[in-house]
Amino acid sequence: MSGNRAVAYKGPGKVEVIDIDYPTFELKDGPGVNPANVGRAVHHGVILKTVTTNICGSDQHMVRGRTSAPADLVLGHEITGEVVEVGRDVEFIKKGDICSVPFNIACGRCRNCKERKTGICLNVNPDRPGSAYGYVDMGGWVGGQAEYVLVPYADWNLLKFPDRDQALEKILDLTMLSDIFPTGYHGAVSAGVGVGSTVYIAGAGPVGLAAAVSAQLLGAAVVIVGDLNEGRLAQARSFGCETVDVSKGDPRDQVEQLLGVPEVDCGVDAVGFEARGHGSGSATEAPATVLNSLMDITAAGGALGIPGLYVTSDPGAGDDAAKVGSLSLSLGTGWAKSLSFTTGQCPVMKYNRSLMMAILHDRVSIAKAVNAKSIGLEEAPRGYEEFDAGAATKYVLDPHGYVAA
Amino acid sequence: MSGNRAVAYKGPGKVEVIDIDYPTFELKDGPGVNPANVGRAVHHGVILKTVTTNICGSDQHMVRGRTSAPADLVLGHEITGEVVEVGRDVEFIKKGDICSVPFNIACGRCRNCKERKTGICLNVNPDRPGSAYGYVDMGGWVGGQAEYVLVPYADWNLLKFPDRDQALEKILDLTMLSDIFPTGYHGAVSAGVGVGSTVYIAGAGPVGLAAAVSAQLLGAAVVIVGDLNEGRLAQARSFGCETVDVSKGDPRDQVEQLLGVPEVDCGVDAVGFEARGHGSGSATEAPATVLNSLMDITAAGGALGIPGLYVTSDPGAGDDAAKVGSLSLSLGTGWAKSLSFTTGQCPVMKYNRSLMMAILHDRVSIAKAVNAKSIGLEEAPRGYEEFDAGAATKYVLDPHGYVAA
Amino acid sequence: MSGNRAVAYKGPGKVEVIDIDYPTFELKDGPGVNPANVGRAVHHGVILKTVTTNICGSDQHMVRGRTSAPADLVLGHEITGEVVEVGRDVEFIKKGDICSVPFNIACGRCRNCKERKTGICLNVNPDRPGSAYGYVDMGGWVGGQAEYVLVPYADWNLLKFPDRDQALEKILDLTMLSDIFPTGYHGAVSAGVGVGSTVYIAGAGPVGLAAAVSAQLLGAAVVIVGDLNEGRLAQARSFGCETVDVSKGDPRDQVEQLLGVPEVDCGVDAVGFEARGHGSGSATEAPATVLNSLMDITAAGGALGIPGLYVTSDPGAGDDAAKVGSLSLSLGTGWAKSLSFTTGQCPVMKYNRSLMMAILHDRVSIAKAVNAKSIGLEEAPRGYEEFDAGAATKYVLDPHGYVAA
Amino acid sequence: MSGNRAVAYKGPGKVEVIDIDYPTFELKDGPGVNPANVGRAVHHGVILKTVTTNICGSDQHMVRGRTSAPADLVLGHEITGEVVEVGRDVEFIKKGDICSVPFNIACGRCRNCKERKTGICLNVNPDRPGSAYGYVDMGGWVGGQAEYVLVPYADWNLLKFPDRDQALEKILDLTMLSDIFPTGYHGAVSAGVGVGSTVYIAGAGPVGLAAAVSAQLLGAAVVIVGDLNEGRLAQARSFGCETVDVSKGDPRDQVEQLLGVPEVDCGVDAVGFEARGHGSGSATEAPATVLNSLMDITAAGGALGIPGLYVTSDPGAGDDAAKVGSLSLSLGTGWAKSLSFTTGQCPVMKYNRSLMMAILHDRVSIAKAVNAKSIGLEEAPRGYEEFDAGAATKYVLDPHGYVAA
Repeated sequence: MSGNRAVAYKGPGKVEVIDIDYPTFELKDGPGVNPANVGRAVHHGVILKTVTTNICGSDQHMVRGRTSAPADLVLGHEITGEVVEVGRDVEFIKKGDICSVPFNIACGRCRNCKERKTGICLNVNPDRPGSAYGYVDMGGWVGGQAEYVLVPYADWNLLKFPDRDQALEKILDLTMLSDIFPTGYHGAVSAGVGVGSTVYIAGAGPVGLAAAVSAQLLGAAVVIVGDLNEGRLAQARSFGCETVDVSKGDPRDQVEQLLGVPEVDCGVDAVGFEARGHGSGSATEAPATVLNSLMDITAAGGALGIPGLYVTSDPGAGDDAAKVGSLSLSLGTGWAKSLSFTTGQCPVMKYNRSLMMAILHDRVSIAKAVNAKSIGLEEAPRGYEEFDAGAATKYVLDPHGYVAA
Repeated sequence: MSGNRAVAYKGPGKVEVIDIDYPTFELKDGPGVNPANVGRAVHHGVILKTVTTNICGSDQHMVRGRTSAPADLVLGHEITGEVVEVGRDVEFIKKGDICSVPFNIACGRCRNCKERKTGICLNVNPDRPGSAYGYVDMGGWVGGQAEYVLVPYADWNLLKFPDRDQALEKILDLTMLSDIFPTGYHGAVSAGVGVGSTVYIAGAGPVGLAAAVSAQLLGAAVVIVGDLNEGRLAQARSFGCETVDVSKGDPRDQVEQLLGVPEVDCGVDAVGFEARGHGSGSATEAPATVLNSLMDITAAGGALGIPGLYVTSDPGAGDDAAKVGSLSLSLGTGWAKSLSFTTGQCPVMKYNRSLMMAILHDRVSIAKAVNAKSIGLEEAPRGYEEFDAGAATKYVLDPHGYVAA
Repeated sequence: MSGNRAVAYKGPGKVEVIDIDYPTFELKDGPGVNPANVGRAVHHGVILKTVTTNICGSDQHMVRGRTSAPADLVLGHEITGEVVEVGRDVEFIKKGDICSVPFNIACGRCRNCKERKTGICLNVNPDRPGSAYGYVDMGGWVGGQAEYVLVPYADWNLLKFPDRDQALEKILDLTMLSDIFPTGYHGAVSAGVGVGSTVYIAGAGPVGLAAAVSAQLLGAAVVIVGDLNEGRLAQARSFGCETVDVSKGDPRDQVEQLLGVPEVDCGVDAVGFEARGHGSGSATEAPATVLNSLMDITAAGGALGIPGLYVTSDPGAGDDAAKVGSLSLSLGTGWAKSLSFTTGQCPVMKYNRSLMMAILHDRVSIAKAVNAKSIGLEEAPRGYEEFDAGAATKYVLDPHGYVAA
Repeated sequence: MSGNRAVAYKGPGKVEVIDIDYPTFELKDGPGVNPANVGRAVHHGVILKTVTTNICGSDQHMVRGRTSAPADLVLGHEITGEVVEVGRDVEFIKKGDICSVPFNIACGRCRNCKERKTGICLNVNPDRPGSAYGYVDMGGWVGGQAEYVLVPYADWNLLKFPDRDQALEKILDLTMLSDIFPTGYHGAVSAGVGVGSTVYIAGAGPVGLAAAVSAQLLGAAVVIVGDLNEGRLAQARSFGCETVDVSKGDPRDQVEQLLGVPEVDCGVDAVGFEARGHGSGSATEAPATVLNSLMDITAAGGALGIPGLYVTSDPGAGDDAAKVGSLSLSLGTGWAKSLSFTTGQCPVMKYNRSLMMAILHDRVSIAKAVNAKSIGLEEAPRGYEEFDAGAATKYVLDPHGYVAA
């Protein structure tokens, strides 16, 4: 049996690579594991040797100390791997398969899974619908920023790549199928993006850039990305987006300069609750800024896709309302314009096969768009730090050298 | 040429029946008419002799003085009429036709109308998308609580009833097609109501009751209506709804008693910005109460239909945020449950023909459900008063005695 | 271990109740079992004690000798049962649960299942997508007109009723969830039936009647059912349908008498390939009659739902084209009217939970509509005979006396 | 008043440029005008100076003598023009606007138009739903392969280009918005094409090529085009399509060579009733070939978009069934695979604005894909001839030299 190195949260601002147990077909007790999940048998699971596992912006919420994540929680919900062991009840996934793992864990047997709502599976998190690997309050499934990881309900959850060599060749693109590409795509789809749309995407981090690429893939006429970070805006321009620097003021005027009208058809919030103000207020956290701004610049009849995370509790927030997840929203503005809003985790399985096909047939270059960069597992702490500092880079951990090879 | 008696807003709490001009094929200056609309030619219009015209809850916002409506604004956007004069550009609507008028005025020629989004027509209100008869800041089209009224773009807007006698026989049902039946139906549809759904509808006023009937028509398994007003709740029970008295506390527990689970599939907000608190707080206005409560009791993966009106400015509101239309919403709760939200005016033309068919073939009894009661035009002030006092009644004005006959 | 009595096909026109093996968690060799399925392990399955199992019109195709079904094939794909044994890989279904079994067997793990297309599961029938219990060329899963039956992929396939007593009380309604209610509903949904629609349903057998009930549940304004069999038409009238006797001529004129126009919004083919001619041709098989007639009487812009079975090979057909499944269709008529067409098995899991809710909350009376009648298992041959003779009855087999009790 | 040169059908195989009357705001009697339309007032219309007008494959059906078109019928339903006169009831379209004309004429006032089904407008063709300029049995609206043309219901029908100079610069792309681009797009959309789809398009004429470009724009992973004509296949390859030469045999094997599987997700019929056989049968007309082939190579659960024209009467057909528009279809194959089918004229107005945006923002190069070539109006007869001979060219007539300029 191998050892198992893994990236763990150690406390606010601190991430370390530690030794953990090699997985078995049982969810054992450990940091952050829901008591009701301890000892759960996972004969429907497989053990993956991690091919790639990416650092995600939502990991940063934990690392910044904005959650109740315990020390030694193993991080990582963006996982691609090679099957090395197969549980006794797995029928179609085989040893040697290279697979993408949707970040939302789903049972494939509850009402919501049967309705394709795998982001809110009823059977994997004892506390509430919805789960994920390596995330606080999500059931306690061990994170995948590790050499080996257990994936439950493998026949249901895993997306097998059709050809091993082809998969490894395009691995920096395919690794984005576990989360950010479908998440950005879900944002675009739920914002109503289609052929000929004009789109504004708030946030040029990896999810925002993935939403921008998705909007292009869906046929959008114009894709505008807004952010405070010039490096990230430059990244957006590198693949044909227009950009708005929100540190220079409200996006409305800049949108008008780009389009001739101050409004777009579709709005995507790829920022979430840690939003900052616009213009001179950009130094301060202002959690309702993005949504209020999107209601302002989305035309009547439009829709807002909201993949950016909003939480029910944020002890580190600046004001009392935000601490309990309340936002002061100009709903009247949205109502007058008949806007609609879609929130929540992306149900990855709804989209990942289609996006895989687009990657395999060279219809989209997601790795290039998000500036994917692979580093070793041991370098993860540096990756977290640079990403938190605003690098226009998507860090991909490569624990076994598959990417390097 | 006839005279023209009409119901006008005279000031906070005050409604009177006054004499106004008989309409011509031109939008003339008058109280509340947008300057850019003054003198607008309406050769595409018809003049209707009003058959019925209903008092609407949204009229009450003006009458209570919660808006900037000027004195002498003629009220009324729920209109059914007989065509008595036909503009030169009208081709298919004929003199003698009995027609339902969608409350949202639409041109049938702009991008939004072509996309069936007639609630946000671009060409009828110079200030912004969307318009209505007899409503403040909606372009200035003269209200229909009058003996005669001008309807623009008649070939597009009007829904002709196939048979005059049948129409007059079912007029108390058909009169609901101009607004509240489609509006309630839109609330149900946008909340995702379908066969087998469990539904909670906040508000047992006419729109709430119409949403409840609509949910039944759409095949809902259980329809629960919540309100503070026992008379209105009794009305809801009269046609098979379950009810929740929100003055007795948060709906969650009462929903659980009814369903065995504390959540429903679909939520409808038929209250809007003048909401009151629940439980002991029910004496006080609390504009975010309904939406926060709906996010609490709608199950993960559900949807909220929000036909209840939210405004961009409410000078009469109790707190500063509400005065500018801001609500403190627990969006984190909605996000964790992957909820979606649909706001705005109902695009009546999307639904009215289907609902007419359901009425004409005796599939639905909307008049009975909302307790329709016809009164004379001159009795309108009393109707406004009783309705505002919470009567479980939908008041239908009958200016020419069509209903009485 | 119990014995196991079962209804078997013995040859053209002949059905007998025979002794077969009690099921185990393995698909054993036997009449009609696909060689590639022999020996397949079914640890994901459960064994059901049959509560009810219905005779279906599609069983009659085999019994009439219109297929290559081998002697001793055990019939029955409409199954409701009580779980008596649970395979080792079943996690959420428990012993004692009363469950409905979708007639289409699905793995819950392939691309099509993940997309809710369980009627064309890729993993259960080695020959082609799609499978069913007790049906020729469908993989060889043993039929459920038996005392006990094996159900594979039980966590995925089974719909558990929430309460045992309530389930047994409404069992004659709930038994229709395994096939004909969802199948009729799918026909209505894919024909575009909604609130206010006018609908023509070809065929007043159980699926046609289920489609008619479904259309009503979906809010249709008028539901017209056509057939040659007066008893079945009377059954349709018993719950509010209009009827057309196609032995008296083409439906177009009769539709016009009912509606004032000779066309409906939506058409459903609940007959399939064993159709007979209309009018004086009604004594003769004419497989394209129904579809051509539906294209004639469905209005431009309408849709046809085609749950009626069409086959790829029909050795017993009257002409050479029909023998290879070719029909002479007036596609030009359909094209000129921009019609759309939906064919194929109903994906039961897409609808059965919703329809169960409608039954449990007394929104629909499907048993009454199809005139359900329970008989003992040993009486099955008589049931087949009477049904084939045109009885306006849906026969429900009751092997253990659950219904009688 | 100007003269008006126009392209007319003179008899089988014969097209000439003739002098016709300059249009007025009335539909006058003439070749092919429906008697019930003679004298119809068109105050809602505009007169266009033709900027471009394309020769369409469906014109060839008439020119080949396969229809009852009378001599001197003016051809042309693909029209882009500059407004030179405005009817008295036109409100939003102005003199000088450059506009695209949807080939289906629609009133914007009937039930179908209100439901966006403008291909089957109820008010423009006295014989049946649906109409077009310059086409036999379509109401008699004068064709647009002329210097000037009357467009009724101009506010509804016309798509105005936002900027005149930009429009003229991109005119060879924008001219495809009147028919083939939306028609091909409708084929792709109704075949279910989306991101990651594999698509087979039967026919590499302009509509097939437009469908191919559309599939790419919608994000398809692989687009395969089949035809008998090597020049047209080369054109398809020029913009990234895979191709299948159906003269070399049934497409199934060639599809398998391309994809590794013999089936695609989506099938488009861009051929219609004048189809020829595959393989050695390719010299002979075989009207059901394309549809049967598409049912064969479209995977279970897929959809067929059928923009290719099928007629109700084809006196020139090779067999009796085809003469009355009947096709021998293997519907059993389609049914076993749960396929769906969408037929009919494309409702251009549903798509043209979106596609215009994609063109104006350089997201698609439709002119290049279909190999657009502009020629003078007087050269039209040669264009017809070359196109009929199989040129891989889309002929654009340029009556006033706008394109040449």
